[in-house]
Amino acid sequence: MPEPGASPFWWERDQLHYDKGHLRFAGEKVQAIARRFGTPTFVYSASRIRENLARIREALETIGRPYRLHYAMKANRFAPILTLMANEKLCGIDACAPEEVMHAMGCGFKESDISYTATAVSNSDLDTLVRFKKLHINCDAVSTLRRLGQRDPGRDIGLRINPAMGVGYGENELLHYSGNATTKFGIYREQFDEALETAAKHRLSITTLHLHTGCGYLGKQLPVWEQILTEAKTFADRIPGLKTINLGGGLGVPHTSRDTPLDLKAWAAVIKNVFGDSGLTIEIEPGDYIAKDAGLLILTANTVETRQTTRYIGVDGGFNLAVEPAFYHLPFEPVAVRLRPGAPCPVTVAGNINEALDIFAENIWLPPIQEEDALALINAGAYASSMSSNHCMRGKFREVLLF
Amino acid sequence: MPEPGASPFWWERDQLHYDKGHLRFAGEKVQAIARRFGTPTFVYSASRIRENLARIREALETIGRPYRLHYAMKANRFAPILTLMANEKLCGIDACAPEEVMHAMGCGFKESDISYTATAVSNSDLDTLVRFKKLHINCDAVSTLRRLGQRDPGRDIGLRINPAMGVGYGENELLHYSGNATTKFGIYREQFDEALETAAKHRLSITTLHLHTGCGYLGKQLPVWEQILTEAKTFADRIPGLKTINLGGGLGVPHTSRDTPLDLKAWAAVIKNVFGDSGLTIEIEPGDYIAKDAGLLILTANTVETRQTTRYIGVDGGFNLAVEPAFYHLPFEPVAVRLRPGAPCPVTVAGNINEALDIFAENIWLPPIQEEDALALINAGAYASSMSSNHCMRGKFREVLLF
Repeated sequence: MPEPGASPFWWERDQLHYDKGHLRFAGEKVQAIARRFGTPTFVYSASRIRENLARIREALETIGRPYRLHYAMKANRFAPILTLMANEKLCGIDACAPEEVMHAMGCGFKESDISYTATAVSNSDLDTLVRFKKLHINCDAVSTLRRLGQRDPGRDIGLRINPAMGVGYGENELLHYSGNATTKFGIYREQFDEALETAAKHRLSITTLHLHTGCGYLGKQLPVWEQILTEAKTFADRIPGLKTINLGGGLGVPHTSRDTPLDLKAWAAVIKNVFGDSGLTIEIEPGDYIAKDAGLLILTANTVETRQTTRYIGVDGGFNLAVEPAFYHLPFEPVAVRLRPGAPCPVTVAGNINEALDIFAENIWLPPIQEEDALALINAGAYASSMSSNHCMRGKFREVLLF
Repeated sequence: MPEPGASPFWWERDQLHYDKGHLRFAGEKVQAIARRFGTPTFVYSASRIRENLARIREALETIGRPYRLHYAMKANRFAPILTLMANEKLCGIDACAPEEVMHAMGCGFKESDISYTATAVSNSDLDTLVRFKKLHINCDAVSTLRRLGQRDPGRDIGLRINPAMGVGYGENELLHYSGNATTKFGIYREQFDEALETAAKHRLSITTLHLHTGCGYLGKQLPVWEQILTEAKTFADRIPGLKTINLGGGLGVPHTSRDTPLDLKAWAAVIKNVFGDSGLTIEIEPGDYIAKDAGLLILTANTVETRQTTRYIGVDGGFNLAVEPAFYHLPFEPVAVRLRPGAPCPVTVAGNINEALDIFAENIWLPPIQEEDALALINAGAYASSMSSNHCMRGKFREVLLF
């Protein structure tokens, strides 16, 4: 492991670092993985997943309330990852579709360890969900309450609310989910009475209040987050018998050298500040934070040449396997698997899909890369394989969980 | 069929229009399709595909040169569509991955009717491609030329060039592919001599010059397009024995009431103006223009309610099935399958994926929609099912080709 601060590579850490010029991940040489498994291959680190979960649990302990930690499986549903979590009882599951519920159970999770929160829930979804009596269902709309109540009156449920904050908070990614513009998520204050009445009509006991406040947040968003939680508490105060407050996920990980990791103690202090004496169980549902930095996407450079004055590296995977750079403008930083001697130079790394936006990185400094060298895209553990498509019939890849 | 100009629905046409309050597509009631096949279901019209191809052929005839028309199968590779085209000899195929070549042949296309143009081509891709001796391969990079030449010296090939235009053309979607910034596509003028030398070294005969100039262009981009073609001709003039100029695809279709359809006669006149006396065969490769308006995505409204003051319709499909609104900011306009009595009102149509960007339309005017009503998203025939993912395990859908 490198000395802190000594590395020119901001992302180096225990279990992801160079050793004698070779990138090692989870104790293995990445080049050896590429050679044996071929590329494109996603590799995931079981120990990094355990560490990420342990770090969150440690922070949750400081709140002084009972808590439940659910993994948002939409981030990465690779069965071995789910079975690792279920087998070691590392966490529960946040599911958002009936198929996810059944996949999680197929991988070893108990029904009672799964919390369901979705939007635009169909009757067919509900017909499947009510077969699972111990599944916890959070309702995102009055319509869902009504249709669930008709099918399964008397059930314990949750309400997903949207603590719209009025104007004044400006542009902030937290507000795409719960904020000053009307979003597709949750029950607003204007519809809250109707929601309570609808639940009462069908004897649905509201045991959980759920809110999701954004995604990918780091330290600078915490003040806004605290204001949203404070607003949410005014909803919680109106539900007698409430047992649990579910604060969603959204905990972010650094994507570039300019990002500072989320201070989990500060994050937990916000929760403690608002809900520390609420008597409620705290529930959270991270996805990215658990899985993202526990995965690499290993690709092979197949084309290395200069176009005009740009040094260009073409690789054997595209945005259909890792959509965040093209569509969310989040980088999957490509790193060299082998540190060849020679000065780093700026390069553009482009995928093999016939679309202009299929670029993984522009003007990124890499050591010399030759054709047939492997490259690793870091932070590929979440929202990559789970969102992959077979666009251009380039959808083939392999996944490997390293213990 | 409605009188031109008489309809409040800009997208109405023969084979896609209301009849006694019911949307009909390809001669069938869309509601009946939804009822029998369930939703989400993509339906495609064989006759619209034939019409779109016939319209292009008619325009190509006006150039006065031999021509070939290839369908860019990455737009929609649904096997029945490919077999329709192969069986009726409507067009050839533009493929961009070895799997696409084999899928097209599996659907009935002859090897010699397929043109291959890709980027970041791997050695493994080339090892597969050279098994197909009559496949036409356009090389996108000097590296590809070298590695193809090593494997199959003496082959007839094409060069994909990038006629970079220098500064001065401003923001224009055409320039994302070939323009003033260096893109990932094609061989630039600075590398053209090296490309010719590399081809010569391996006795690769350059019979085709290929350029792709953008995607989704309508009339206003034609002047820029003409400048790019003129620039490209200076490359063509340097290749003795050149037989074919391939102008790529990119022909757009209207997405909103504000768009004017591409004037194919004006488009063909540009080609004639630049290449009419070139002695070359004209090759083009549209995808969108052939397939996009030949498809609907039928969904069901499962949640209809007001959030704050926004009328909100939740449907049983998400951006994972039709990615263009969320990621490319191109609308798939939702239209009512049944015209219920009552005044239209502005609504937001949102998908069932737990992400804020999963919105199909905001503030679009629709007639009254009730829960369990079907909705149809128009222009869903291209870059929808072919790019679909199983994100949130919401990837299930059906496809139906209507004759």
